[in-house]
Order: sequence, then structure tokens, then C-alpha cells
Amino acid sequence: MRATIMYGAGDVRVENVPDAAIKEPTDVVVRITRACICGSDLWPYKSMKPSEAGRRMGHEFIGVVEEVGSSVRTVKKGDVVVAPFVWSDGTCVFCHEGLQTSCLHGGGWGSPGVDAGQGEAVRVPQADGTLVVLPVERDNALMPSLLTLSDVMGTGHHAARAARVAPGKTVAVVGDGAVGLCGVIAAKRLGAERIIALGRHADRIALAREFGATDVVSQRGDEAIARVKELTGGFGAHSVLECVGYEQSTATALSIVRPGGAVGRVGVPQDAAIPMAVPTFFNNITISGGPAPVRAYIDELLPDIVEGRIQPGRVFDSVTNLDGVPDGYRAMNDREVIKVMIKL
Amino acid sequence: MRATIMYGAGDVRVENVPDAAIKEPTDVVVRITRACICGSDLWPYKSMKPSEAGRRMGHEFIGVVEEVGSSVRTVKKGDVVVAPFVWSDGTCVFCHEGLQTSCLHGGGWGSPGVDAGQGEAVRVPQADGTLVVLPVERDNALMPSLLTLSDVMGTGHHAARAARVAPGKTVAVVGDGAVGLCGVIAAKRLGAERIIALGRHADRIALAREFGATDVVSQRGDEAIARVKELTGGFGAHSVLECVGYEQSTATALSIVRPGGAVGRVGVPQDAAIPMAVPTFFNNITISGGPAPVRAYIDELLPDIVEGRIQPGRVFDSVTNLDGVPDGYRAMNDREVIKVMIKL
Repeated sequence: MRATIMYGAGDVRVENVPDAAIKEPTDVVVRITRACICGSDLWPYKSMKPSEAGRRMGHEFIGVVEEVGSSVRTVKKGDVVVAPFVWSDGTCVFCHEGLQTSCLHGGGWGSPGVDAGQGEAVRVPQADGTLVVLPVERDNALMPSLLTLSDVMGTGHHAARAARVAPGKTVAVVGDGAVGLCGVIAAKRLGAERIIALGRHADRIALAREFGATDVVSQRGDEAIARVKELTGGFGAHSVLECVGYEQSTATALSIVRPGGAVGRVGVPQDAAIPMAVPTFFNNITISGGPAPVRAYIDELLPDIVEGRIQPGRVFDSVTNLDGVPDGYRAMNDREVIKVMIKL
Repeated sequence: MRATIMYGAGDVRVENVPDAAIKEPTDVVVRITRACICGSDLWPYKSMKPSEAGRRMGHEFIGVVEEVGSSVRTVKKGDVVVAPFVWSDGTCVFCHEGLQTSCLHGGGWGSPGVDAGQGEAVRVPQADGTLVVLPVERDNALMPSLLTLSDVMGTGHHAARAARVAPGKTVAVVGDGAVGLCGVIAAKRLGAERIIALGRHADRIALAREFGATDVVSQRGDEAIARVKELTGGFGAHSVLECVGYEQSTATALSIVRPGGAVGRVGVPQDAAIPMAVPTFFNNITISGGPAPVRAYIDELLPDIVEGRIQPGRVFDSVTNLDGVPDGYRAMNDREVIKVMIKL
């Protein structure tokens, strides 16, 4: 079968790899029908050291179950399923607590011996704990939005939850990528009264407004901080969603949160320390978040997608096939597009 | 009147200062009966640059109302009152949210033009929002415990709340000073099943056990982390109270918290950044806390003291008078004593 391998910064290839096949009785094999490229895939795309073996890429996919291990109970051949960006057993203490990203027997797509999402098929370990059967056919028009349940919509929701978004609150979203845009959807869905989107790209900002942003701040750094303060009576936002991961964006997030408020961080941190230890302390700021346990959120978000209340699939503004994946990385990295869907 | 002034590191003097007197109609004057030295007073005691004007010291006190401003409604002459470690108007948006430490019209004892607690009397600004009348006489035996409502008991409670202590949880407390010891009381009071106290001083650890600590870890750094992990099935504690403020103690706190858990920090940070941005992200750790809005907690904690369910006053293992204050600083800084009460 064919799959995507990254060999170093800027070096993404689609190549032949061994066919996905069952190894454990808890596995299934999924034939992929939709996958995508993630903003977090751009971190190695910018910085990965050259590697002869390379690294299998992709952690967001929907597909059709093709083979089922002998002990799998919850999915059967022919089911259309969505996979979270990590796999998890569904039975350990952390899975029971809804934190499947810390599953004791889970792991990441593309780790040694495990397939990844940007390819034709995937062996799914711990299938019962990982996959969710979708109540639609394989080419349903909702596929783009359903695909966001594997990562970006669940991640935006996690940021909003970590930032304690609630009815009536003022929310600021740092970052206008797919996760930030899903954060806007999540904030509106959770009842935010005012949603301030920080971003500078016209196409993304337009979408943010359609998703529910009430204000846009296109400045950066100190000017952005001043503008958000101005918009919020000098106090800042109750809830801030940090959807980037750089030290500057984190410092901005921590500077625009109101005393007693919370920052939900879902941008993968690119620095060793969290800045502003002292002002965040004196303002009683809560810093929360991390990789989203999207498996825990699918049940909550799926009905809103199926019934049309939210349309996170609109973050996909480009569709390609497997051969188009390398150029999809380039286009996302160059900010020509927000997020690329791969249709197989 | 006489009051305590710090002129630089290690230089604390008790001197004559202008008498406390009403300036605003919202003021009262309180004749101090009990005060104390705080662990946070030791930060300037270790590091303050020499100052000719010096700095008035003390932010924890109980006293008797002596004079009452014309617009004050909730306290009257003769009332025995306790003051939180900051004053606050009780009417602004942050006071209404229970975050009096961020009061828009509040401030700190000893700031320019404002008296401080380690002296004979204090002008209390915003008296209605600040003071709480105590239901006891001025020399009641409960005075040591009631005095902790001004800071350390409320601060320990804040750490426990920020760390999301709840019934059945495993809690770790980093720091065996008065705040850490009150954190043990708070954790037990909020229903923690297991309380691991990290500390090395025999007298403090003995008190921690009496307050409810079920385990003691006397190692430091990596050894302490390993020991807490060992005590918690390899996972760490659900809730960690950071009651020191150093980078190492913060790193320890962030290393012994279980994935999905929370660190409540109340130790004043001595460094510009919070360490461990990346592991705390991947473990979905919540970092919360700050200066405790003790004014908000007095109503909740006072009945437990009056009815004898908690005895935080036991953290005072030394009593002195105003003349003994400089030596009290020395004794606390040398760790000869846990916390010094000043009886006037």
C-alpha cells in the first residue's frame, strides 16, 4: 500500500510500505477514505532532522473497517469509523477518567510498528477503545466536519473547556489556524457572549466571523494586548484559547486574560518554559490544557455535526489525493490554505 | 505609635511612626492585639536592598476597632476584627467574584501612606470591604487560629481549591512552612483520602501528621519525585499544593502531579518563568492559584475554627511582643521556629 513518509524538514514523500495487517486480536484494519494534514505536522516539516528511515505521517482519518481482530467487540467489517489522533484501550484508569491521551496502553499513529493516517490503510491497535462508528455512509456530505472529530474540533473544544468557557463569558482565541477556528465554534457552542479572534489572515478571519467571532484583533504582541484590553473594559477576557504554541503567542494569551480567568492551551509548546510566572500568579490565572482527549468528546460533538448545528469541516479549504500530500504540506506551510483534506 | 520597619536585608527595626488616624470616611483605626511574621516577609528579609525610608512590615493582624469613619457601616467601635492580607472595597467586580486580591480599589498593607500589621495600630482603608468582625472577645484562646484567617489558613485553603482537592483524592503538599501545614489542614478538610507532605524538618513534619498527612517524603528533587510516584502507583497525586515558590519546588510539584491533575501554587514565585512547559502540556496538567482571596474564605473557615474542627493556630510555635519582632524574623529565617505570633 502507499503512505506518506517524512524524511526531514520539507521532505515529504508518498511511497510503498508494507500493507496494514492485523497483529493483535484487539486490532482492526481500516481502509482510509478521508485524512488530512495537521498544523502540528508542520512542526517537523519546518524542523525535522534528515532521517534515512523517515517517519510515517498523519493522525486524523476516517475509513471503512476491512478486517477485524478476534477480540474486537464494538466495530465490524464495513463500519464507517473515525479515529482520534491517538489510540487508547478504553479500559485503563485514565481512559475511564476521559483522558485517553494518557492511556496506559495507548500511543501515537506513526510510532514504531504502527501505521499512520496519511496512507491507504491503517492497522488500528486497541480498536474497541479507539474507534467510533459513524452513523453515515462513506461519502456522506458531512465527511469534512466528521473528520474534524479526529483532532481539530475536539482540540478547539478542549481549549474552550480548559479555558472554562461558559454562558455569558468573554473569550479570546489566539491563533487563526484550523484549531483556533474550531475554538471559535466551541466557544460559541458553549455559550460565550463575546468572542475575540486574534489573527491576521483575511480568509481565516472571515471564517472566524462566520463561526461566531464578534470582534477581530489583527495586531500582534503589545498592540494586540492593548486592543483586547480596550475591548474588554481594561480587564481582559475570562477565557483565552491558546491555539499556536509559540512563546510569544503564549505570552499574549497570558497577558489578555482577566484576573481570575483561565488560559486553555492546545498549541504544542515550542519552548521549555511558560513565560510570565509572576504576573500570572498575582492575577490568579489558571493555565490548563494539553493534547485533547478527543475520544472523550466525540459523543458530545457528533450530534451537533450530524444535525447541522456546527460545521467545522469548513476549515478545509483544499482537497487533494494521496499524491497531492507533499504539495499540501507546502501549501499549508506557506499559508496558502488553512487545512488540506485528503480524499482517497 | 510604634511599628516595624525593614531597612534592608536582615535589618528590621521597631520605631516610632505617626499615629494611625482616619483619612477617608471609609477608614477605621484598629488597635492591634495580635499580629505575626509571614514566610513571605522573609523574601525581603533575605534580599531587600538598603533603603533610607524603609518599608513598613506586616499584613496579618487582629485588633479592636478604635475609631470609625463616617461612612463605615459594618464595624463599630469595640468590635474585634480580623484583616485579610490585602484590603479591598467589597463592591467592585472582582470583589463580587470573590477575588478580593484583584480589587480595583484595594491594596497592600505598608504601601505608601498605608500602615502595616506589625505595629500598635493600623488605619484600615475600605473597612467595610476588608474587615470581618469576630464572634469572640479580644483575648479568647482561639486567637492564634483566628489570626491565621488573615493569611496562612486562607492561603492553604486557596492552594487546595486551586489544586481541585476533593473527597477521595490523593494530595501532595510541597513545603512544610506554615502555609504548607495549613494546606494539609485544608486538604483533609476538603476530603482528601491521602495526603503526602513533602518536608524535612522534624517539628513541622510531626505537625503535618497531626493535621492529617498520611505520608511524609523527606527527600528532595528527583528522589522526592521518585518517592511520590512510588507511593501513588507510578501516577502521581491528583492535586499538588505548591507552598514554596522556588523554581525547584515548582518543578517538583509539576513532576509529582498525575496526568489530568492540578497544581495549586501559593508560594510567591521567585523566577520569571514556570518550568516544564512541555511535559505539563502533554500530561494535561492544570496550573492555578496565586495570592489567596482570604477575605472570600473567612466566612467558610471561621465556623470550623470557632467550633474547634480545625486548629491552624498550632503553626505558631513562638510568641513575642513588638520589641521581639526583629529577633522573630531572625528565628524564622534560621528555621528555629515555624511562625512567630506577636502579642500586643
